[in-house]
Amino acid sequence: MTENWRDNQEIRIFRDSLRKFLEKEGIPYFNDWEEQRMIPREFWLKMGKNGFLCPWVEEEYGGLGVGFEYSIIISEETMKVGAGMLGIALHSDMVVPYIASYGTQEQKRRWLPKCITGEFVTAIAMSEPGTGSDLAAIKTTSVRAGDFYIVNGSKTFISNGLCSDIVVVACKTEQTNGHKGISLLVVEEGTPGFQRSRKLKKIGLHSQDTAELIFQDCRIPASNLLGEEGQGWKYLMSKLQQERIIVALEAQIMAEGALQLAIDYSKNRTAFGKPISQFQHNAFKVAEMATEVKIGRQFLEHLLINHMKGKDVVTEVSMAKWWITEMCNRVVYQAQQLHGGYGYMEEYEIARYFRDTRAQTMYAGSTEIMKQIIAKKIGLL
Amino acid sequence: MTENWRDNQEIRIFRDSLRKFLEKEGIPYFNDWEEQRMIPREFWLKMGKNGFLCPWVEEEYGGLGVGFEYSIIISEETMKVGAGMLGIALHSDMVVPYIASYGTQEQKRRWLPKCITGEFVTAIAMSEPGTGSDLAAIKTTSVRAGDFYIVNGSKTFISNGLCSDIVVVACKTEQTNGHKGISLLVVEEGTPGFQRSRKLKKIGLHSQDTAELIFQDCRIPASNLLGEEGQGWKYLMSKLQQERIIVALEAQIMAEGALQLAIDYSKNRTAFGKPISQFQHNAFKVAEMATEVKIGRQFLEHLLINHMKGKDVVTEVSMAKWWITEMCNRVVYQAQQLHGGYGYMEEYEIARYFRDTRAQTMYAGSTEIMKQIIAKKIGLL
Amino acid sequence: MTENWRDNQEIRIFRDSLRKFLEKEGIPYFNDWEEQRMIPREFWLKMGKNGFLCPWVEEEYGGLGVGFEYSIIISEETMKVGAGMLGIALHSDMVVPYIASYGTQEQKRRWLPKCITGEFVTAIAMSEPGTGSDLAAIKTTSVRAGDFYIVNGSKTFISNGLCSDIVVVACKTEQTNGHKGISLLVVEEGTPGFQRSRKLKKIGLHSQDTAELIFQDCRIPASNLLGEEGQGWKYLMSKLQQERIIVALEAQIMAEGALQLAIDYSKNRTAFGKPISQFQHNAFKVAEMATEVKIGRQFLEHLLINHMKGKDVVTEVSMAKWWITEMCNRVVYQAQQLHGGYGYMEEYEIARYFRDTRAQTMYAGSTEIMKQIIAKKIGLL
Amino acid sequence: MTENWRDNQEIRIFRDSLRKFLEKEGIPYFNDWEEQRMIPREFWLKMGKNGFLCPWVEEEYGGLGVGFEYSIIISEETMKVGAGMLGIALHSDMVVPYIASYGTQEQKRRWLPKCITGEFVTAIAMSEPGTGSDLAAIKTTSVRAGDFYIVNGSKTFISNGLCSDIVVVACKTEQTNGHKGISLLVVEEGTPGFQRSRKLKKIGLHSQDTAELIFQDCRIPASNLLGEEGQGWKYLMSKLQQERIIVALEAQIMAEGALQLAIDYSKNRTAFGKPISQFQHNAFKVAEMATEVKIGRQFLEHLLINHMKGKDVVTEVSMAKWWITEMCNRVVYQAQQLHGGYGYMEEYEIARYFRDTRAQTMYAGSTEIMKQIIAKKIGLL
Repeated sequence: MTENWRDNQEIRIFRDSLRKFLEKEGIPYFNDWEEQRMIPREFWLKMGKNGFLCPWVEEEYGGLGVGFEYSIIISEETMKVGAGMLGIALHSDMVVPYIASYGTQEQKRRWLPKCITGEFVTAIAMSEPGTGSDLAAIKTTSVRAGDFYIVNGSKTFISNGLCSDIVVVACKTEQTNGHKGISLLVVEEGTPGFQRSRKLKKIGLHSQDTAELIFQDCRIPASNLLGEEGQGWKYLMSKLQQERIIVALEAQIMAEGALQLAIDYSKNRTAFGKPISQFQHNAFKVAEMATEVKIGRQFLEHLLINHMKGKDVVTEVSMAKWWITEMCNRVVYQAQQLHGGYGYMEEYEIARYFRDTRAQTMYAGSTEIMKQIIAKKIGLL
Repeated sequence: MTENWRDNQEIRIFRDSLRKFLEKEGIPYFNDWEEQRMIPREFWLKMGKNGFLCPWVEEEYGGLGVGFEYSIIISEETMKVGAGMLGIALHSDMVVPYIASYGTQEQKRRWLPKCITGEFVTAIAMSEPGTGSDLAAIKTTSVRAGDFYIVNGSKTFISNGLCSDIVVVACKTEQTNGHKGISLLVVEEGTPGFQRSRKLKKIGLHSQDTAELIFQDCRIPASNLLGEEGQGWKYLMSKLQQERIIVALEAQIMAEGALQLAIDYSKNRTAFGKPISQFQHNAFKVAEMATEVKIGRQFLEHLLINHMKGKDVVTEVSMAKWWITEMCNRVVYQAQQLHGGYGYMEEYEIARYFRDTRAQTMYAGSTEIMKQIIAKKIGLL
Repeated sequence: MTENWRDNQEIRIFRDSLRKFLEKEGIPYFNDWEEQRMIPREFWLKMGKNGFLCPWVEEEYGGLGVGFEYSIIISEETMKVGAGMLGIALHSDMVVPYIASYGTQEQKRRWLPKCITGEFVTAIAMSEPGTGSDLAAIKTTSVRAGDFYIVNGSKTFISNGLCSDIVVVACKTEQTNGHKGISLLVVEEGTPGFQRSRKLKKIGLHSQDTAELIFQDCRIPASNLLGEEGQGWKYLMSKLQQERIIVALEAQIMAEGALQLAIDYSKNRTAFGKPISQFQHNAFKVAEMATEVKIGRQFLEHLLINHMKGKDVVTEVSMAKWWITEMCNRVVYQAQQLHGGYGYMEEYEIARYFRDTRAQTMYAGSTEIMKQIIAKKIGLL
Repeated sequence: MTENWRDNQEIRIFRDSLRKFLEKEGIPYFNDWEEQRMIPREFWLKMGKNGFLCPWVEEEYGGLGVGFEYSIIISEETMKVGAGMLGIALHSDMVVPYIASYGTQEQKRRWLPKCITGEFVTAIAMSEPGTGSDLAAIKTTSVRAGDFYIVNGSKTFISNGLCSDIVVVACKTEQTNGHKGISLLVVEEGTPGFQRSRKLKKIGLHSQDTAELIFQDCRIPASNLLGEEGQGWKYLMSKLQQERIIVALEAQIMAEGALQLAIDYSKNRTAFGKPISQFQHNAFKVAEMATEVKIGRQFLEHLLINHMKGKDVVTEVSMAKWWITEMCNRVVYQAQQLHGGYGYMEEYEIARYFRDTRAQTMYAGSTEIMKQIIAKKIGLL
């Protein structure tokens, strides 16, 4: 993995082909999906058909067996369509990896091929109404009864909550304190006692469905346990870094998009007899935004390479996650301010950016949690 | 007008009665109005019936003839219901004053009584698609033809744009450069050539209708001219200060509301075994918010008194307008962050705050315009 | 005490007379004092002769028996000479009040008259090398032996440490934990075992002497105990609010001074063919500074009045202390940036401002301690 | 030039040897130099003897002919001794390159060898009392008279102003507007009419001498012209990027140093019964500082490589210059705040950092000039 991996010819061809696909199958419909609060399954299937879902999965399960760089390309290009597309990367790069890493061969054969075709969309259920950042405090219980686990509890803020076919659920198989006793179970659509309670109304990310899930004496076959019982915390931690890298990447793409909108608008809009980009205050604001965006990108690129090289990147990931998502919020705020009243109108793209980016400092580990991790790594706490 | 005007018994009784009214007639329906993107006329009429519209208008036209302090109370209490209520203050304290100050006795008799009962809702049309902050550049023309003005042009971002019965329109009666030649005409619903083109989709302030207006050979009776021809700029400038004071007041109320939401949430929400308010980082953030909110309120209170005393407050108004609206955005952002994922969910009130406050740094003179005014007053530019 | 107290004729005459005094006796020598790292006793004596030290002390002890408003005027005018003058207010309004409030009549007769003439300069010794913000953790011991207290320990960051004649020392008369057992003793110059160890080299505030004090079996007469044994904590807390108000006032004066320097410099300095004040970026920066300075002043004025009215102002004091001192640092930083390279040269007054203001967020209760207090008052911690 | 150039064995040996040299010859004396406001020539000569001055100069002139990476190492290690060492890099990497790039072979033979041994220390004179950022407005004139140029004018803020033996002077050989007509002349110590007027008293960077230079009918031999007449602007622009890169590097080193001081202090200092690093507010502040420092370093490393590869880096240099120097000021401010009162005492190293870093946002192109360049590069202005 070299610094110039983006110039690799295959990568460039892959990106071009994805871009063309999205221009035809994504961009023209995106606003409708935002209205409908859902990306239709049809689109998932087309993505799958073209090899744009989970391309990293081994060929024996139907994947392409390629590296994470293809996932980066997919995240970047889908985010450019709109941040509401994040469910794609969530499925491909945050949930399916649990199955691939901790599933048995039988489980992998059962689920992975359909995850790749888009027949199965996945979700992961961690947060609960009573816990947010404090994952270790989850209360959903899971009691073994013969060949089943009887699961009780509720989960919230579940992305792909409604459109998913299989959900990885974090629950307590042992009533101990803290991290211990957490296990991961895969619940399939149609399992008795498993209910999608309601779609959550969010400020933005409208095409992304987010829901509450309820488990009432839900009977999940014991064979749906991922990995070993009680090892869930370890599994979750192992995948969190990639999740946060992708969120940082998504925020970076949004910041770059907002900067471009600001540049375009300020060059074209005139006031007091000249393009507003020529007012020094505006020009300096854009220069500041451009600097922060560039600095963020540089930091991220370096991180992506180290992640792909398999290095320990926990500190850098935590830094990137909070700094880039907060930076994106600042950049979007300024870009919007430059638009004046138009920045508040939904017909201007920057309005959607404003609504969409706000979630990024909260999910996948809030800004505060990231600082906590960094402080610990430095040995302060 | 003394510093303690809020303790005046009549003021307190008035506020109590308004509060009770809103608890019965406003708060229970507010979410519906947000959904319907409109406050129903019925509510306006009830407000009027109870003396809550334009109470400052002289008694001979049906008003109460009371001071601006009653307007402050109304702004504050309606804003506490929701920022989408701002059309009330817009009508009472920003538009109707043009009629009262510059209208002939005949015009005042014709329009003011109905403005007070709520039979007439008003709007003011300044901004145009091609002009935002640059008011002097408006292009809507108005040509005298006998007893009529023939008006052509379009206006945008018009609050109360759809629900209004009469609209004060700024237009050019003379094709000169800059401020000269601007006149104010009152256009009434049903005037030929006057068209409400479409409701604008905004990020927030949903119960507030905002629209584009189109004038195509619109024939406005010459008797609807407000004041003298060509004096419009002067008239607009004379009323802008009160408009900006009210926007600052609205932002202050929102900041105070957001602070309270943050305090309540952080005291009640637990994580890692204790109320999240007890994490020093959170506690300090709230302390910072509380400080800025308090400082803003103090500044505003002083300004309100000076405005009521009739002092020249242009510099202070400009300072209050930008600083308090930006402060409100900061406070809301932090309050939302404290909510974690819930802050992104519409069912939590802070989510609406986030969408609603964003407009305040843009309308009624953007942050940048305010700084420009201050810099000029200091003699820098 | 009314809002317009500054317009009172006696106050204005007092200020004028002080100003004239300082123009003659202070300003021309101030730079020398900065070089000498000390304000000469001669100046203190002249201040005293003119009634500018402790004017609030009752007439029976030689004071003028006037209100705190005279102290405000003195603080303001001396700070305008230079921040290094802060020892004056420290003596008059922070230390002497301990004697006046908690001293016996005998003690008051012995010390107060000379504090008013300037024959006695005072200091207060709280901080120790091992404690900063954590006052309750002081370790200086005081053991009763007959008619004496035997004091052992060391104190640091003592303003007026070298030039003072009498020092109020906080020490532990009981070896209990926390706040209990703290007593205040007055140590006089020449007391055996009392040593000024060394003048501390500071970044700025050069004319203000700051020193370490050492107590080695120091024998202080028991009759020098202020108030009751073990009540020191209560006494300290009772005077801290006024101390912090004065620091906030000093920072406010500095912020106003820095703003004025920025305005003057930017109007007079030309670059690229015009005064640099006409570059929009600079003009907006100054407008931002002017806004924050004005907001700070308004907040402070309100606080001063409430303090003079005897209201409980702990929350507001804590807000003013941190916000105004941090604001002053921001304003000075920007004012200096506007000066370009000259801002880094000692011959430009802004350079001294930069060095002097930095201490203000640290002493008399750091920014962090202030936020802690506010958070507690809100009920978060 | 690869990303891993720092791991190169020769580089590591070079750094080690320099470090040992500085531990012996620099660090023990640095405080004295700060007091004396000058680095003694003796030290320059030792640096030269060990190959630590201008190692990039071609071997035929006495240099080592090595790449810019050696200059980076020297900048980094000398800055770690103290920011007042910046005159070394100024000489080696900002001034001498003019001679090497634009000098004739004769000039190079005359000056370069002594620049490398430290017998000649160099300076560059651009700024004038009337011009700061506006280089094109310089007024120092240079009139050809036979074999001489007669130079008149004055220069200010000249680093190495007093200790230098030869000074590259930017002056106007033609009285035209703007950039045209600027030429570079080398003035040597002892030239009639060339006077070092006075050492400037600065806030910090004390061991760095900074002076005003005066030229009164100063007769500089025509053979001391660097390059062609009238091409000075072009020459200056060509070298500015490297100058700014080094300033960014110096600020980065300082930010890293300040972060380390903050970490060490907060781990070792206790208050309220535990290390202050364990207070969440402090821990989070340090985490924020660590993030910004890391992000700055990453950005800089990438820039250094691109500069060494000879790429056009004007935009990135401008970004790095303003962002890293401002970041350094933020980081130092926070690190100092963590120190409490000690942060204000000269005996704590952070105090010097505070005084030293403040110049970095001003010299070598102020923050504002950098934003101007970026805005132009984006096409806004």
